[in-house]
This record gives sequence, structure tokens and C-alpha cells, in this order.
Amino acid sequence: MAVYTEVSDEDLNAFVASYDIGEVLSFKGIAEGVENSNFLLRTTSGSYILTLYEKRVDERDLPFFLGLMEFLAGDGIPCPLPVHDREGKALRILSGRPAAIITFLDGMWVRRPQNNHCAELGAGLARMHLASTRFPMKRQNALLMTDWREILSNCGTLPAEFEAELMDELTEDLDDIAASWPADLPKGVIHADLFPDNVFFLSNKLSGFIDFYFACTDFFAYDVAICLNAWCFETDGAFNITKARALLQAYNRERPLSAEEMNALPLFARGSSMRFLVTRLYDWLNTPAGALVKPKDPLEYVRKLRFHRKVRSAREYGLELKS
Amino acid sequence: MAVYTEVSDEDLNAFVASYDIGEVLSFKGIAEGVENSNFLLRTTSGSYILTLYEKRVDERDLPFFLGLMEFLAGDGIPCPLPVHDREGKALRILSGRPAAIITFLDGMWVRRPQNNHCAELGAGLARMHLASTRFPMKRQNALLMTDWREILSNCGTLPAEFEAELMDELTEDLDDIAASWPADLPKGVIHADLFPDNVFFLSNKLSGFIDFYFACTDFFAYDVAICLNAWCFETDGAFNITKARALLQAYNRERPLSAEEMNALPLFARGSSMRFLVTRLYDWLNTPAGALVKPKDPLEYVRKLRFHRKVRSAREYGLELKS
Repeated sequence: MAVYTEVSDEDLNAFVASYDIGEVLSFKGIAEGVENSNFLLRTTSGSYILTLYEKRVDERDLPFFLGLMEFLAGDGIPCPLPVHDREGKALRILSGRPAAIITFLDGMWVRRPQNNHCAELGAGLARMHLASTRFPMKRQNALLMTDWREILSNCGTLPAEFEAELMDELTEDLDDIAASWPADLPKGVIHADLFPDNVFFLSNKLSGFIDFYFACTDFFAYDVAICLNAWCFETDGAFNITKARALLQAYNRERPLSAEEMNALPLFARGSSMRFLVTRLYDWLNTPAGALVKPKDPLEYVRKLRFHRKVRSAREYGLELKS
Repeated sequence: MAVYTEVSDEDLNAFVASYDIGEVLSFKGIAEGVENSNFLLRTTSGSYILTLYEKRVDERDLPFFLGLMEFLAGDGIPCPLPVHDREGKALRILSGRPAAIITFLDGMWVRRPQNNHCAELGAGLARMHLASTRFPMKRQNALLMTDWREILSNCGTLPAEFEAELMDELTEDLDDIAASWPADLPKGVIHADLFPDNVFFLSNKLSGFIDFYFACTDFFAYDVAICLNAWCFETDGAFNITKARALLQAYNRERPLSAEEMNALPLFARGSSMRFLVTRLYDWLNTPAGALVKPKDPLEYVRKLRFHRKVRSAREYGLELKS
């Protein structure tokens, strides 16, 4: 929950006047979103989200993110559509920050996803992957295995609140994951951060994907594994195979996973656990006490990592493997 | 900026189903409001604000606050209208907290009020005061002089970041203010917290008053003095007599201040400085480092208090006094 940048009346009015979206009626900071400042903007022509991109987003990536949303929306994937100004630009400057206006998407994210939400997600994710293969831009994943290692080593010696052997365990696991990481599997643009708060539903139907600011070119099955972690564990830490099966089967119907992709799922689930573990751990250790955003618990992903380490085949995620 | 209470999907749907306002389309936490959790609620029938009243609001006061808004809105004063559920209630329980749905008000608060905003405010405030005299409920001000003294003494010994003599200065001033406080001046319901972020404008016209959760029965001129402090000082601390004159003259045209009220203005300006000073000072000293809401600077009101202490007559606020 955060609004990091204050926008003055004059700046806002001048900014909105560059677009053909009518007069401002209302402008309120939204208590969601960790990386950027988001505002609900109502004008005489409708509702929009105005985003100011803060320092954690690399400005050079913004054309990719905005271009991707525009491409996907045009291809029938429900996601916000960037609004162009009178000069045709989707990206401008507001209060010293890069800023964009996107259309407001109805829908709510589900606090506790059920089986049907996981099925909706699986189908929607597969359709997004298929569409993304026709998107011409590329962006390298900024959180690859080498980055995980660097982030982990930047965490230094862990304080006493963590298990004494945790750092050794993670380092060893990283070696192990790196040794097995595949070089060649189906790739395209993945969302890479598809947690429940980035997926909207209306009457239990998926109504929109948001927050494409980690999207990058990478293995599709890795994106699936991120979703397994984010959607198919209960709050008590238990893996829910029914939810996983619903997600994977629905995905598979829209975009059949190859045998190689299925085989890679346990490894990708470990990898994606590691990816969120190291960033959460780093934030946990480096967020000042008075910060606007509370850091997320890294131990949740330690538990997920340990679970996946014992998984021997995608069958344990509820997938029926071709023999 | 704050959302203190998480609302589950089931709770929200059950709650909204008690009202005749259609299906939920969107539900987002708003990064404004210090005392309560506020959400923007969009349904098939329109936009609303859903407020969960947190612990700093006394539940017994809520019928007064909601009744006041309903009365004022019905009397043509622009403010949110509480929505009644199918049983006729404006106040329900959601996620364990008292909660209400009010209509969404278009408009924006001005970050830097100009003369014309002060004039709009003065006229609107006077109309609200006049209307409030017909509102039958009463509520004692919960932040009276005796409360200021108690809050100040609860601040204890001030840390070294404050001037060494500040506590003595404030205690002495409190005695002085108490000795001169009038017993009998025109009273009614006052807003008591009419800072710029509680007043909306559209195209420079006042479009709404919000946040009535400090409203109480007290001297009208005290409310005017609160506004002088909140609207007529520049960010560098300088008093802007042009803005004050605009505010007071506009007020005076709608509801002429009596000679006694004018004479009391400098005292009320000191009193209202003290009122915000002591609560800010207390919050400054007692807000944990990791709190969601950053405490406001109490020194701003120390400077205002010192300014008003030297004021000899309301003429120094730009008012032309009747001789």
C-alpha cells in the first residue's frame, strides 16, 4: 500500500490536459501496489488508473511493458489498455516521474482462491502465453538464476531469527537448480508475477490481468510454476493438489505442455520458490522500520522450496503424464 | 494513507448483498484517511466509499456522524450521503468493525489553496453552520481545553529535539487561553477538522465536505479559527492575510459574525492551534517507527500558536471590524 510521490494540482491538470479524456473529476491514491504509485483517476469520460513509475522500475523497460499490455488487450486478453496522449505517446512525465494512464479494469482479486479460480487462471495464463508469441518485443528476465545468487550473497550473514544452516541450504540448492536448469524449452513473454492480487475476477470469471512490470521473455512452464506457488498452497503451508490439478489441466487444454515442460515443472517450482525467497529475504533484511510497505515473509518460500525439493514428478502436482 | 482491516471476499459479498446497490464490480483500498479504513466500492449502480471505523472512533458517536451527513446532504450542503441497507440501517458490521457505505463525491482537494478556494470555503462553511442549527442531535466536543491539558501532560518530558522551554510555554499558554475562553457565543454543529484534504473542489468551486468524524457541538467561530489555521498559512509558515480576508469576508456574507465572535477569533485561533499542537505532539511521541501513518509535524502548530499570541484583533486577519 503506497503512494510515494505527491502530485500537485497544477501538474495533474497539465498532465491530463495532454490527453483526450475529458476533465478531471476525482483523483485518489490507491493503497495497493508495492513498486509504483497508483491513483484512481475519474474524468468526464470514465475511470482510469494513473501510475507513476518509481525508482525500482527501469524506465527503459516501460515501452516493453506498455507495448505488451496494448498488444494483449488488442488480442482479446483482458488487461488494462494504455491510453495515448494527443501526440500518440503512452508514456509521459508527471511530477518528475515517468507516468502512464491505463484503462480501469472492473473486477476484484480473490483473497482465498478456490479450485475454480485456479482453473480460470490456468486457462487465462495459457491464452496469454499463446498470444504473447505474436508480440514482437523482447525483454530479458531481470531476475535470472545468476541474479538470485547475487541477491542471496548480498543478504550477508543471516540474523539469529533464521535457522543457522539456512544460508548453506539455499546456496547448495542454488547450485543444484543451476546444474539442472534446461537450455531449451518453449519460450515467450511471461507475466512472471502472477500472484492472486494481479488477477481480477467478476462473478468467479477471470476479468483481467494487471501489473505487467516483471513481464519478460522466458520459459512458459516457469510462469506456470510461479502460479503453482502463488495459488496452490494453503495459508497453513499445505500444498493443495486439487487446486494444482485444476490449474494445470485448464492450462493444458488451452496450450498442451510438452513432456519436457512437464518434466521441468518440479525444477521450475524450486526455481521460482528460490526467486521469490531471495528477493523477500533481501527486502526483509533491508526494509527500514518506518517503510510504507511491510516486507513479505521469506519463510513462506523456504517452506515451498523444501516441498518442491522432494517432488519427483509433475504427477505430484496432479498432472497425468503421458507415458 | 491506510487500510487497517482486510476484508475477505465472502464478508464483502455478504455485506453488499444487504444493500440495494447492485453487484460489486471493484473494491480498492484508498491511500487516504488516517483514522479509518476507506475503500472505493464500484457496483453495477455506481461508485461508493465503504468505510470501516477503526479503534480511534467511538462507535457510540457513529449515529451522530452519519445522521449529520444525511441531514446536511438533504439540506443542500454538498457532502456524502450514507446509504441505508434493506432494513433501513446506515451502520452495519463488516469484518468485525462498524462499517458504512456512503455515496462517492466527485472533486479533488487542493494541495495549495488559493484565495478563491478560501472564499469558497468561507461561504460553504457559513452555509453548513446555518444548516446545522436545524440538526437535532448533539455531540460534545471530545477535544476540549481540559482534554488538551491532559494530552499535553501525557506527553511527559519532551525529548531533546524540542526546545527546552517548550513545555513550560505551552502550559502557561493553556492557562492563559482557559482564563479567557468565552462561555456564551453562537453554537451549533461544527466540522472541527476542516483541513484542505477534507474539502473537494471541481473547477475551483467547492463540491463537497467529507470526513465528519470530529464534528461536534461547539462555537461556530472556533470552526472558523480552525480553518484560518489550516488554509491561510503558507508552507514557509507565513500568515497570508489575503487568504484570511477572502475566507472571513465570504463567511461573513453568508452568516455575519457578531462583534463578540470577531473579538474571540484571535483567542480561538490560539485555542485551535493548541488543539492540533497537542494531538500532533502526542502522536509524534507515540507513533511506533513502523506505523502505516507518518505523524504530522507538531512544530507547524507551535509556530501558528506563537503567531496568534501576538494578534491583538481580528483586524489582523483581514476583517473590517464594526466600530
